[in-house]
Amino acid sequence: MSQAKINVGVLGATGMVGQSFVQLLDAHPWFELTFAAASDRSAGRLYADATAWRLDGSMPERVAKMTVQECRPAKEAPTLLFSAMDASVATEIEQAFAEAGHVVVSNSRNHRMEPDVPLLVPEINPGHLAVAASQARRGWKGRIVTNPNCSTVALTMGLAPLKRFGIEKVVATTMQAISGAGFPGVASMDIVGNVIPFIGGEEAKIESETQKILGEVVDGRFVPLPAAVSAHCNRVPVVDGHTVTVSVGLTAEPRFEELVEAYETFSGEPQRLKLPTAPAQPVLYLKEENRPQPRRDALRGGGMTVTVGRLRECRVLDWKFVCLGHNTIRGAAGAAILNAELMHAKGMLQVAS
Amino acid sequence: MSQAKINVGVLGATGMVGQSFVQLLDAHPWFELTFAAASDRSAGRLYADATAWRLDGSMPERVAKMTVQECRPAKEAPTLLFSAMDASVATEIEQAFAEAGHVVVSNSRNHRMEPDVPLLVPEINPGHLAVAASQARRGWKGRIVTNPNCSTVALTMGLAPLKRFGIEKVVATTMQAISGAGFPGVASMDIVGNVIPFIGGEEAKIESETQKILGEVVDGRFVPLPAAVSAHCNRVPVVDGHTVTVSVGLTAEPRFEELVEAYETFSGEPQRLKLPTAPAQPVLYLKEENRPQPRRDALRGGGMTVTVGRLRECRVLDWKFVCLGHNTIRGAAGAAILNAELMHAKGMLQVAS
Amino acid sequence: MSQAKINVGVLGATGMVGQSFVQLLDAHPWFELTFAAASDRSAGRLYADATAWRLDGSMPERVAKMTVQECRPAKEAPTLLFSAMDASVATEIEQAFAEAGHVVVSNSRNHRMEPDVPLLVPEINPGHLAVAASQARRGWKGRIVTNPNCSTVALTMGLAPLKRFGIEKVVATTMQAISGAGFPGVASMDIVGNVIPFIGGEEAKIESETQKILGEVVDGRFVPLPAAVSAHCNRVPVVDGHTVTVSVGLTAEPRFEELVEAYETFSGEPQRLKLPTAPAQPVLYLKEENRPQPRRDALRGGGMTVTVGRLRECRVLDWKFVCLGHNTIRGAAGAAILNAELMHAKGMLQVAS
Amino acid sequence: MSQAKINVGVLGATGMVGQSFVQLLDAHPWFELTFAAASDRSAGRLYADATAWRLDGSMPERVAKMTVQECRPAKEAPTLLFSAMDASVATEIEQAFAEAGHVVVSNSRNHRMEPDVPLLVPEINPGHLAVAASQARRGWKGRIVTNPNCSTVALTMGLAPLKRFGIEKVVATTMQAISGAGFPGVASMDIVGNVIPFIGGEEAKIESETQKILGEVVDGRFVPLPAAVSAHCNRVPVVDGHTVTVSVGLTAEPRFEELVEAYETFSGEPQRLKLPTAPAQPVLYLKEENRPQPRRDALRGGGMTVTVGRLRECRVLDWKFVCLGHNTIRGAAGAAILNAELMHAKGMLQVAS
Repeated sequence: MSQAKINVGVLGATGMVGQSFVQLLDAHPWFELTFAAASDRSAGRLYADATAWRLDGSMPERVAKMTVQECRPAKEAPTLLFSAMDASVATEIEQAFAEAGHVVVSNSRNHRMEPDVPLLVPEINPGHLAVAASQARRGWKGRIVTNPNCSTVALTMGLAPLKRFGIEKVVATTMQAISGAGFPGVASMDIVGNVIPFIGGEEAKIESETQKILGEVVDGRFVPLPAAVSAHCNRVPVVDGHTVTVSVGLTAEPRFEELVEAYETFSGEPQRLKLPTAPAQPVLYLKEENRPQPRRDALRGGGMTVTVGRLRECRVLDWKFVCLGHNTIRGAAGAAILNAELMHAKGMLQVAS
Repeated sequence: MSQAKINVGVLGATGMVGQSFVQLLDAHPWFELTFAAASDRSAGRLYADATAWRLDGSMPERVAKMTVQECRPAKEAPTLLFSAMDASVATEIEQAFAEAGHVVVSNSRNHRMEPDVPLLVPEINPGHLAVAASQARRGWKGRIVTNPNCSTVALTMGLAPLKRFGIEKVVATTMQAISGAGFPGVASMDIVGNVIPFIGGEEAKIESETQKILGEVVDGRFVPLPAAVSAHCNRVPVVDGHTVTVSVGLTAEPRFEELVEAYETFSGEPQRLKLPTAPAQPVLYLKEENRPQPRRDALRGGGMTVTVGRLRECRVLDWKFVCLGHNTIRGAAGAAILNAELMHAKGMLQVAS
Repeated sequence: MSQAKINVGVLGATGMVGQSFVQLLDAHPWFELTFAAASDRSAGRLYADATAWRLDGSMPERVAKMTVQECRPAKEAPTLLFSAMDASVATEIEQAFAEAGHVVVSNSRNHRMEPDVPLLVPEINPGHLAVAASQARRGWKGRIVTNPNCSTVALTMGLAPLKRFGIEKVVATTMQAISGAGFPGVASMDIVGNVIPFIGGEEAKIESETQKILGEVVDGRFVPLPAAVSAHCNRVPVVDGHTVTVSVGLTAEPRFEELVEAYETFSGEPQRLKLPTAPAQPVLYLKEENRPQPRRDALRGGGMTVTVGRLRECRVLDWKFVCLGHNTIRGAAGAAILNAELMHAKGMLQVAS
Repeated sequence: MSQAKINVGVLGATGMVGQSFVQLLDAHPWFELTFAAASDRSAGRLYADATAWRLDGSMPERVAKMTVQECRPAKEAPTLLFSAMDASVATEIEQAFAEAGHVVVSNSRNHRMEPDVPLLVPEINPGHLAVAASQARRGWKGRIVTNPNCSTVALTMGLAPLKRFGIEKVVATTMQAISGAGFPGVASMDIVGNVIPFIGGEEAKIESETQKILGEVVDGRFVPLPAAVSAHCNRVPVVDGHTVTVSVGLTAEPRFEELVEAYETFSGEPQRLKLPTAPAQPVLYLKEENRPQPRRDALRGGGMTVTVGRLRECRVLDWKFVCLGHNTIRGAAGAAILNAELMHAKGMLQVAS
């Protein structure tokens, strides 16, 4: 695209999501990591010294030698910053960077539900990006754009192709991987050979985020999808990949073949624009009776494809199916990177200049 | 109760469910195993030689030395027979024994949905037993009584206390233990670190069995509960204990406290009659926000208590909760033994004499 | 034994090992828990409020209502105290109680290797108890007696029956359960579907403790077994039960049958004295080619029996075998309780009176 | 290398190892799969129809459409054939192909220990290939070359760099992944949350194969390494990657640094010849105290690098360490492909022409 790479930074670069950004950005064709910031405890140390690397494979050597910076606006910080900060500190820091003219593409939950912050899934609601302009009213020279919770991505990608049939009701049960809880996250004594039928705050997030993502922008405001959404969240002993069983009630009365075709033909701007992180097929419908499965399907499309299967009639709502997404790629760092790619392709990374 | 123990037999005694019967009957206060029958391949051999013991703990010594019998009516066969036979052979064999005057208390699915066969959960529908008398019309001197599928038990016990509020709709997602699939059952390559969102035939069983169990007997016929039930079935890497997330729509509008009270006061004939296998509390409501959990709660009440938790409002139906039952005890052998205990207490084991 | 129960206390009662003591003492025929002490953070609160209960089953009701005490000698503290304290604080506190006249039966590692402290496995080295008398030279009115590391118990019980043949060399590889690391212990991201070939400090403990336990007392001093012991320690995704593969070199040249007979006839003072926690068979030799297995065999003998199997010739040393013990029962709280039972049976709990 | 690709076939192409060959050959720069053979039951059907695909990712489309052939020498069969056949049938079929002029590069165990069949690990004993010429004495126009058992590869690669110091004794304990047992392989009821301390025939294979691989060729005959090797084999709930703890006795008395240097500088003909499947570093020494770990390290070097760590002194033998290899890549299909690449590079695939 552009000849020179675009400098980017990661806020909260030493944690698990931060490491995921570092890993996915390592060979990125457009972006080059030049700024790794973290808490004051880590700032000033080499990234290799400040970071307990938790991911498979090894720490990129170039990043290992970088000095960790403070999470404060500074002239060294590039315009585009990915935020992997903990929710306990993200609000103020992200706002400070936005105010100072940075584009903060955040995986943190803090600003997701605010009325002027896009909660973006590029294949589903690219039009939501336009609302970010209204952040100027906060006196910000920059912007904050967010991606959804890891479970919400799998669910909304499984629902988006059905939107044309009028989604009215959704009952979803998640079986979420342990990597979704970060490190140290879930104690092994709690999850080996077990199911934990509770994840703090998760159900409310899935319910409200799904409505916002599948909603519309009317007169510059987000109008959530007027559908009832109910979530049951569970942790299961799986490493990567959140599986969701879904019952859905629709206004229209599509036939089975129409629904499968909706899945198979679903595509969006990332595919049209051939964004580097966009999978060729954002939603893949699997015909085998026992798929998708997290260990076997989460990494499809480099972890960016959401797989769907087992579409069949539901005796309570209209249809039911299973969907599955990779929680640390499509559900976190990969989602944010795709957001930034879309913004770059649309010329929205130059707000601050 | 009676001074001398009642002789009982197990059909299909060498398989995993059969072993479970053998284990649970080993120290039973009323019943004494005197007849262990299996396929012709095993018949004539010592139980210890014919059986690859899969359960924890060791094979009861007394049974180890018994000679395996053929699954054919014979004068050695006691009146009361527990059936742990594979569905591929259970239909004819169970009928042959019933015809010959035996009471077959079966865990097999074959006769569950027949119009003259009780599908019994003693705490829920003890009145269904009366319908068994109509089996005389088949020319049977004996009877067949069945217990439900392992997932159905957990679900119906979680729903039964709510029946007074009018159950209209149920969406249930199961996370089922590997022991539910017998041996060798699920290949480890399929389930270690994975979820399989499919169990052949299971969803239809849960849907129809739940309606029958929670239904009424009117004029000697079963009238299923007129509620819509929809199930999503998943296998998870848990050893014992099926967890079910449930959304339920009710006719009445009970308050939260009324629902919890319904759970806490739920009791039935097994408790009133103090049947040996009856748990003091058939349904236990757990107040912790992250319970029930299979590894920690499946064995409550000796594996016969179903635990419920996380009752909260549902945005689509009215309420949602989690319930959990031990699949090989309350969901199989223990269920059948409780059925036989109820029949004995009601004087129904003497049909053939 | 005695008519009235003996009052006992637990130091560090709110942690996982402390909970295990509380659970095992709940129905103990000789001992009655009257004193539950923990850190200053917990002291003064109800046990139920101060404790995040991690074990299967529920907290004993009587203990739930006890007020947690400080870990400081006080007149309320009974003579016999079980210590489940963290190694970071156990040294001083245990010594303070011993000085004040208490018998501290400790699971902590702090005093295990001291020259006047018995490291006791009652079936193996009951004679080591006599050395405790020399603690009077420290000016202590009371005593400290310890039990070994959870892996060491399984290994030494697997070796003890062979001691008569002259143990010269031992190479042992452990596969240790996650419950051995307490709570939160091992992060699930580290162990689900994985092996961690390292447990800090564990190998040195196994090597030195094994020599002390299998050693002699000569002139009132411990003389360690003059055998070379080498350990490889691994964490595996198992809940309870440490499995150990062992190669052993012997001075004598016993035949296979002699070795198996040594296992099958192994017994000790706990069995002779019929101590309440003593298993009928302290070491059980399993003949099946694929046993022992932690999920199936760890709970034998109430978790106090160590199982051994697969004895066969070794091409490098002389023989090899597998042994397995329950790490939180025989390897921790159960071990300490058996130690106290032995001391009581020998009249050694009256030191301080 | 050559411009046109070399046609290759797979015998036993529908099983799990066969699928692994299909997958690894899919984008191979030298070899092109043109012949997929399997049992008579599968022959004549499309590969897609005859094969229950068990691997992650999807079946290569080109292969899916191929018709499965019989495992019998035929003019369609290319010279180079990879054998993934079950041991129960491999002996005769492999010999028939060898006799007919094919080069059979086999993963089956059947011919591994024969005196004229190389048991090849290209980095360790490439000189063993020369012995294959003596197969001409059997009247074979072709050849059979084998790769070792999956555990043996990890162990021999961990030992090979130490060979210069004189290996005298080896005690090895394996913790083997479930994928090593094929499909359905180990029942989930046997391995979830468990360890099975037994794998049929495995220990003898490791012991004898290690001696052959690390041995010499003298006067055209294999002379096994005169070292005593003892193995303990265990199955653990890990998907891919066999971990081995090793104690080793050496003739020389190297310092720690010399040993690490031996690991770090270890390289072989595959690296020198830049064979396509050769990893840049065949043995990687990891300095972290808790590595290697199967889930995190098995895929290093595309699954062809064996990782080693935790080198430290052993109190019984001289040194101890942990090594780890990917069992289905370096331990099976990848190993055979590397063998074939070496043979091609040496001009040994033209034997039959």
